Amino acid sequence: MSRRLDDVSTPARLAEAEEGIGRDELALATRNHGLPLEALRYDVTPPGLHYVLTHYDIPYLPEDAAWELTIDGLVRHPLRLGMDDLRSYPAVTARVTMECAGNGRARLVPRPVSQPWLVEAVGTADWTGVPLRLLLADAQVRDGAVDVVFTGADHGVERGVEQDYQRALPLEVATVDEPEVLVAYAMNGAPLPPQHGQPLRLVVPGWYGMAQVKWLRDITVSDAPFTGFQQTSAYRLRQEPHELGEPVTRIAPRALMVPPGFPDFMSRSRVTRPGPVSLEGRAWSGRAPIATVEVTTDDGRTWSEADLDEATAHPWAWRRWRFEWTAEPGEHLLSARATDAEGNTQPLNQPWNRGGFANNLVQRIPVLCLDTEGSRSG
Amino acid sequence: MSRRLDDVSTPARLAEAEEGIGRDELALATRNHGLPLEALRYDVTPPGLHYVLTHYDIPYLPEDAAWELTIDGLVRHPLRLGMDDLRSYPAVTARVTMECAGNGRARLVPRPVSQPWLVEAVGTADWTGVPLRLLLADAQVRDGAVDVVFTGADHGVERGVEQDYQRALPLEVATVDEPEVLVAYAMNGAPLPPQHGQPLRLVVPGWYGMAQVKWLRDITVSDAPFTGFQQTSAYRLRQEPHELGEPVTRIAPRALMVPPGFPDFMSRSRVTRPGPVSLEGRAWSGRAPIATVEVTTDDGRTWSEADLDEATAHPWAWRRWRFEWTAEPGEHLLSARATDAEGNTQPLNQPWNRGGFANNLVQRIPVLCLDTEGSRSG
Repeated sequence: MSRRLDDVSTPARLAEAEEGIGRDELALATRNHGLPLEALRYDVTPPGLHYVLTHYDIPYLPEDAAWELTIDGLVRHPLRLGMDDLRSYPAVTARVTMECAGNGRARLVPRPVSQPWLVEAVGTADWTGVPLRLLLADAQVRDGAVDVVFTGADHGVERGVEQDYQRALPLEVATVDEPEVLVAYAMNGAPLPPQHGQPLRLVVPGWYGMAQVKWLRDITVSDAPFTGFQQTSAYRLRQEPHELGEPVTRIAPRALMVPPGFPDFMSRSRVTRPGPVSLEGRAWSGRAPIATVEVTTDDGRTWSEADLDEATAHPWAWRRWRFEWTAEPGEHLLSARATDAEGNTQPLNQPWNRGGFANNLVQRIPVLCLDTEGSRSG
Repeated sequence: MSRRLDDVSTPARLAEAEEGIGRDELALATRNHGLPLEALRYDVTPPGLHYVLTHYDIPYLPEDAAWELTIDGLVRHPLRLGMDDLRSYPAVTARVTMECAGNGRARLVPRPVSQPWLVEAVGTADWTGVPLRLLLADAQVRDGAVDVVFTGADHGVERGVEQDYQRALPLEVATVDEPEVLVAYAMNGAPLPPQHGQPLRLVVPGWYGMAQVKWLRDITVSDAPFTGFQQTSAYRLRQEPHELGEPVTRIAPRALMVPPGFPDFMSRSRVTRPGPVSLEGRAWSGRAPIATVEVTTDDGRTWSEADLDEATAHPWAWRRWRFEWTAEPGEHLLSARATDAEGNTQPLNQPWNRGGFANNLVQRIPVLCLDTEGSRSG
């Protein structure tokens, strides 16, 4: 019998009603990881707490010295650049909040079977590298260029298609000067860790993670729209399997809250005691600056505006918000909702598509406030 | 009605037959994370790839300067030490492989409902700190001391009991000079990251992770055996809920393999093409040095000895093994099995206990070898 990739690589599907998380989803959840929400307290996410999503394996590339980035296709002057060549360009550092396009997927009903994020697939880092527009200027893009295609070193099979990870950006996005797309070689002032693209990755401020190609080895300018798997099969907003669907692009607004009080180990339920509780979190949007964050402590019956920290010099990074709450004994449901300057806001009912992409449903945090005599035993 | 901790904190349980991974287990899997198995290629696990298990929240302690470690209880000379005091002691660096006591739990039948590890809860780091025996010598432990109790800054509720995380070691383990227990302030040459105990943690070479108390703030010498939750309720090997059970202590031998070929995104199944495939991985034991690693490529019908790298100067770190395989078209089941110098080896049938602890069942990796004309489309 012939052994084929589709023996192990099956089409996308939705979970049945009541179907628990499967072994395949768990295998993704144990190797990829989210931001523990208490780490929303940091302006810049410490190494190892930033979310990570790897489609295939993390390439083993301990030696950066030999790395070469090629820039070719519809250009007059193809380039072959080593790491030292790239470091000889002007370095730019941008503080950018990245979020996985599948964040929130595991809360959807029905649940698209894929990486099962709850709400934690986010992180903020200081990325340092070369503006892509400078590299494309040196390569001298020819007339008629449409898309710029980025190829990573990660290789695998997905939905029956063997591939290197590839994504494209329209030429006008790849070359715009605000926000500037970076070919980055440093994260938080240190060389990229393996799981974040060592030695080289793309950073596209404001876009979901699928655009941030890691282990970047080739940039090809094309005179036709890119039709690779990750552009036209995956990362589309579809209600039905065979629709073309809209592409996933920029990050929808979202606010997350540092879960207050302390957790139960197993249920992760939050526990507080009566009295003042300072609520805080972060809010971000890849479409426009955050305008307001509202908080509810009564499951949406009433909303109050939170205090937003001063806007900083980092328009593509999340912004901190704070809200003072007085907890009273009983059960409470807390939420925060972000709205950006273009009026994009978070829905209270799930936005659903077959891929579970770009879902920014408002987070709900159950909190149990103990009676004052709550146990301190142990 | 009175609000009590046991409204949100329930007893340990086993999953029903066919019960999928639940939302509570998923919430743990998305915040804790394992070692992506391809990272077994590194002698020392890069930051962010080492496994992490946090019972409660990661404490927010951005300012190390104010940190104090107290050493008290049955001592003549109680100590209160700041970070500079600790750095003034002779520094020792030890390369140690750590593994979560619950590694492999999610593969057990029936499945104990807790952090759902498959096989990836492991990592190896160079830990730098002060030998605990030097601190206890300065504190002058009194006659009659039995246990040394370690308290972390992480606070939560577990199975109905509110607590700071606490574990103890017998005095003779805490003060032995080989392997030396460390009060560590650096990991791989850098200050501890928040998720690994910033600014201070215990490192007990050879023991499972529950002994490696993070965010260490107090060491108390006691004249009685410690009976705290993590010592006598959790981390015991039990067949029935109400047994006292044996304590979980040292790491049982285990070998893991870098999954060969490339993965399917969703199923994580491995795919290769016909011909030579270099298999490699790591093996470790907290009980005695690794003596042999055997490999099977036919699901255990035949086993062959793998090549072990030279033993290094790091007796408590994993050891690399290699095995050359010639893949032929078809489906294959690969495993590796470690045996240590005391004859401890890995079982082929699951060792089961209600906590899913210290389980070192042999890993099985299904590999599909394509016909030579296997698709390269995409």
